[in-house]
Amino acid sequence: MTRKNAFYAQSGGVTAVINASACGVIETARAHSDKIGTVYAGNNGIIGALREELIDTSAESADTIAALRHTPSGAFGSCRYKLKSLEQNRAEYERLIDVFKAHDIGYFFYNGGGDSADTCLKISQLSETMGYPIQAIHIPKTVDNDLPFTDNCPGFGSVAKYVAVSIREAGLDVASMCESSTKVFIMEVMGRHAGWIAAAGGLAAEVDGDAPQIILFPEIAFDKAKFLARVDECVKRYGYCAIVASEGAQYADGSFLADSGNVDAFGHKQLGGVAPTLASMVKQELGYKYHWALADYLQRAARHIASGTDVEQAYAVGKAAVEKAIEGKSGIMPTIERAASAEYRWSIGEAPLDQVANVERKMPRDYISEDGFHITDKARDYLLPLIQGEDYPPYRDGMPVYAKLKKVMTPKKLADWQ
Amino acid sequence: MTRKNAFYAQSGGVTAVINASACGVIETARAHSDKIGTVYAGNNGIIGALREELIDTSAESADTIAALRHTPSGAFGSCRYKLKSLEQNRAEYERLIDVFKAHDIGYFFYNGGGDSADTCLKISQLSETMGYPIQAIHIPKTVDNDLPFTDNCPGFGSVAKYVAVSIREAGLDVASMCESSTKVFIMEVMGRHAGWIAAAGGLAAEVDGDAPQIILFPEIAFDKAKFLARVDECVKRYGYCAIVASEGAQYADGSFLADSGNVDAFGHKQLGGVAPTLASMVKQELGYKYHWALADYLQRAARHIASGTDVEQAYAVGKAAVEKAIEGKSGIMPTIERAASAEYRWSIGEAPLDQVANVERKMPRDYISEDGFHITDKARDYLLPLIQGEDYPPYRDGMPVYAKLKKVMTPKKLADWQ
Repeated sequence: MTRKNAFYAQSGGVTAVINASACGVIETARAHSDKIGTVYAGNNGIIGALREELIDTSAESADTIAALRHTPSGAFGSCRYKLKSLEQNRAEYERLIDVFKAHDIGYFFYNGGGDSADTCLKISQLSETMGYPIQAIHIPKTVDNDLPFTDNCPGFGSVAKYVAVSIREAGLDVASMCESSTKVFIMEVMGRHAGWIAAAGGLAAEVDGDAPQIILFPEIAFDKAKFLARVDECVKRYGYCAIVASEGAQYADGSFLADSGNVDAFGHKQLGGVAPTLASMVKQELGYKYHWALADYLQRAARHIASGTDVEQAYAVGKAAVEKAIEGKSGIMPTIERAASAEYRWSIGEAPLDQVANVERKMPRDYISEDGFHITDKARDYLLPLIQGEDYPPYRDGMPVYAKLKKVMTPKKLADWQ
Repeated sequence: MTRKNAFYAQSGGVTAVINASACGVIETARAHSDKIGTVYAGNNGIIGALREELIDTSAESADTIAALRHTPSGAFGSCRYKLKSLEQNRAEYERLIDVFKAHDIGYFFYNGGGDSADTCLKISQLSETMGYPIQAIHIPKTVDNDLPFTDNCPGFGSVAKYVAVSIREAGLDVASMCESSTKVFIMEVMGRHAGWIAAAGGLAAEVDGDAPQIILFPEIAFDKAKFLARVDECVKRYGYCAIVASEGAQYADGSFLADSGNVDAFGHKQLGGVAPTLASMVKQELGYKYHWALADYLQRAARHIASGTDVEQAYAVGKAAVEKAIEGKSGIMPTIERAASAEYRWSIGEAPLDQVANVERKMPRDYISEDGFHITDKARDYLLPLIQGEDYPPYRDGMPVYAKLKKVMTPKKLADWQ
């Protein structure tokens, strides 16, 4: 086996633990320096490959790489950029091959969600389609938790923990003030198409009356009258009502409560505004004093309250990607497999990328209570293990210390792209 | 000295550490059971005294009381209720005295902000004005950090830490995506009249280019053109711009940005919206993709990332209140005194309530940089000690375990109020 260099890139929305996967990739590659040479990281994801902006990770100390494990965000830069099909933009693939060739890259590790799995699949097919030998392995990452085959997606467990902890805390706050002040609190969370993140908020409710009393899922058509009746019932019964609302909450006709008309690079609608919309309804129809929060990036960046399990799994899939590449594999994604046991145990499996790409895993209907406003015990059994463990970053002067990379750029060998 | 019972109440907006003050009060009273009998806590603050809804804290175990130290929110319930002056509503004071008399209450501990200090002052004067002997001591609490005399207000340090940590994390998130996605991120924080909380966000910025690059204070008149120019400059220089905006940000004429006429899908006016207002400006005038977050209650309830210093100080002022009462004092507020030393050292002092009540401490102008968009070293020197130390709550099954009180109500002895 000839020693080849590796390319690693982060793709799509970043998470609290995607750098833990990067850490797993780089540390494992370093441990197998007889098989893998330099790990080049794409500066801002796949864009870095196209522009030949390759961060030389060998210039980073072992301590800095280790610190990636507790650093949120995408340390090498991520991007929203989807490669077109080979037929639609052959030039992009030729450029990638030129860059890979110029830097002797034989391994491609792509750390992202569903769209990225599709890109990674196309790269894995370059041997056949373009005659360039490369092993491409996808490393799962998405707070949306919507990749198939894997028990869960690294990044999700930490958002889940953040959301559950936050609504427990804010719920206590509202409960303590509700006699004479705010009675309805709404926390808007991410999850455009699936309610996984909103569901995680349900973990905060352990006994009747605990916050949140209501969860709004994209999977359940929003019914204004039913919603307001439930809010009113909670206020009358518990004194207050704490709500976790998915940004993807929608009416029966599929229109989003928060439709703003903006779209991102993938053509996805940009949302943000379910909470104020609901708050207005509550105020208008019920007259209750309300407050609302929109966690936005805070939730996916919150490394300070990351799930220990999530950090471990994120590292493990990065490590496994390299190990599987060394075993000669390509076109696959390491997965997390849950053992069929009472206690949560997991191991690493793998799934073929051609079955992963562009498949979105929805939340099963039986994870949502019959009335559509909460999670079931089945959902709780699934979710609870994912938020186990606290993995605090180190602090200096009261602030978390996150990795700062030198980001030494590898000298370019090719002409500029485009 | 005759043994008397004590009344303790939480007032106004709650915090991550007001229960640590409650813990200090109750534990210290228990340690002096020869001087202080039962500590009755007002159910929902002073309303509980008026309604004779007295929670018997002696029914709570030592473990439960100890757990208050790491429990956010107001465990006994708080309220927004300001007593009128004696002249305006003598009946309320007579009722309070009836309740105090009926339950042999000789100590009044009131845990709140500026308005509460005023109430506490009035109670302390009941000996003179109404002939009922009572010692009233105010325990400082407010995330707004606007009480005079004390170095800082318990509750503030933890919000400060939350805001600084959150904008550091979200800033890294935006930085890693800015090449192809969001370029401007706005985090709206509390502080209607003073920019203390927004200023704390500045602690996240240690070197040039760190988030946040811009802070908007209520103290600095908002200048749209100057703001947009600075945002544009940051995006061009750093690739992105992270902004911490106080909810109290306002124009030169004193009108709030949050009142600037945003309407939701139904045409209803949206409040609490500095962040979306700024986001719209950025989008319309500069065309940058934006995201925004509104932390709302999450920030003041975030016990999971409380400042260790804040927790200690909150406990200490509760403890000191009882000790000072035992010394025979009344009409005062324990304060935190900062020693004039390079290293941060603090001790407990006291201030007379007649000078505390209704005085609002503004942030000094020299805490804000000349251009009005950031904090100065002087502000940093003041703020940094307040976020020192992590004081994590205990976790069970991945979730923080917060105190659950039995809330045993003391049997009523009087007729219902009103």
